[in-house]
Amino acid sequence: MTYCVAMCLADGLVFASDSRTNAGFDQISTFRKMHEFRQPGERELVVLSAGNLATSQSVISLLEKRAGTGSGDILATGSLFEAAELIGQTMRDVVRRDNPDGKINHVDFSCSLILGGQIRGEQPRLFNIYPEGNFIEATRETPYFQIGEAKYGKPVLDRVLHHETSLERAYQCALISFDSTMKSNLSVGMPLDVAIYRNNDLQLCFNERVDEHNRYFQTLRQQWHQGIQALVNSLEPPAINQKRTTLSA
Amino acid sequence: MTYCVAMCLADGLVFASDSRTNAGFDQISTFRKMHEFRQPGERELVVLSAGNLATSQSVISLLEKRAGTGSGDILATGSLFEAAELIGQTMRDVVRRDNPDGKINHVDFSCSLILGGQIRGEQPRLFNIYPEGNFIEATRETPYFQIGEAKYGKPVLDRVLHHETSLERAYQCALISFDSTMKSNLSVGMPLDVAIYRNNDLQLCFNERVDEHNRYFQTLRQQWHQGIQALVNSLEPPAINQKRTTLSA
Repeated sequence: MTYCVAMCLADGLVFASDSRTNAGFDQISTFRKMHEFRQPGERELVVLSAGNLATSQSVISLLEKRAGTGSGDILATGSLFEAAELIGQTMRDVVRRDNPDGKINHVDFSCSLILGGQIRGEQPRLFNIYPEGNFIEATRETPYFQIGEAKYGKPVLDRVLHHETSLERAYQCALISFDSTMKSNLSVGMPLDVAIYRNNDLQLCFNERVDEHNRYFQTLRQQWHQGIQALVNSLEPPAINQKRTTLSA
Repeated sequence: MTYCVAMCLADGLVFASDSRTNAGFDQISTFRKMHEFRQPGERELVVLSAGNLATSQSVISLLEKRAGTGSGDILATGSLFEAAELIGQTMRDVVRRDNPDGKINHVDFSCSLILGGQIRGEQPRLFNIYPEGNFIEATRETPYFQIGEAKYGKPVLDRVLHHETSLERAYQCALISFDSTMKSNLSVGMPLDVAIYRNNDLQLCFNERVDEHNRYFQTLRQQWHQGIQALVNSLEPPAINQKRTTLSA
């Protein structure tokens, strides 16, 4: 599996992805799921991928091959919206290449992508591109998207994240969301790729590959884990000795 | 959907279930998913159910109908293990009744159950009964089971719960696990049913239907939510302005 999250906030964009892929429990590998298409000063696009690795790699390879050629060119789209359309179409083309008549039912060729970034003249935007190639855009009310193994790490995002959250805080939330996911699910694994984009920079302001030895991640996960223990210890105890009843009563 | 969790701890057992069922978004109802089979002083059995409601209701109805008759009698099994076998077999019988040849493929008739309790002469035990009717038992290393929409509420359990956790603390964890799940997923909903069994009591020591107005649950979810905000605010801030690199570098 995979876990990726991306956030579209007042100050910019935050992206994070894990790097574990598996085809069965005995075929586990490390692949980067964060991809960048850049023209400093003109556009900064980040794509996160989940799902069938053959499909997502082909989509990224085709986008890279065509970048700068003027045809199917992700560096030439007039807007992020058009970039999302191009990626969705490329995804459909790849799935059709590998499963032309849709007859192969025992393999899931689909993948899910997140596209975020900014093109000069537009505001930063964030899109969730579905396996069918259609897509939705993040808004102030729904400032983040997840793909892959999303459920474990969702509660902390839902409690903390909103459109006005700072990039630093959002980055912390993303790391905590990954820590919670990796603690409960073996199919999401280190290292993580993290990138931060600040509005109108037209290039990333920060990116990092976070591995087990990353000092900040170690500190953060320890502070979080100890903080949760302390929080649980501080809760008002329940009065469970006051009732003795039967369920069926 | 549904979310149920049950824990087998040093001091006893804790059970919790939501009550929302849905067949599509416009057919939402409230059904109890916690069921009790009791002979005070002899045995206390609690069953939690998730999955196809027609199947799980039929299983419970058959177990209730046969209780005390001496045949297929859940009040007559010599052990919790035999009770799990009986429930698994009853589940297989119901699925076979409703889908005799296994030909109906567009409906999922399956359900998942958790059985926990104590029969005089045995220790308390906890079983996770799979849709196929086979089952596993909780151990010191794996003291809890979840069925249904389990992922959102798993991280807090994995951080806090272990075999020596007190019943009071485990009850708090269960409520927080439900709060996190309900905040992120609409298909799990109030009221909750909660029951606590203390070793060798041979009857429940506490049970409660927790609705939106439950004062303790209100306090707990507020303390937890505010505590998470405070914990996030206390984390060491990241130094995201120190690096400026490209992903592809």
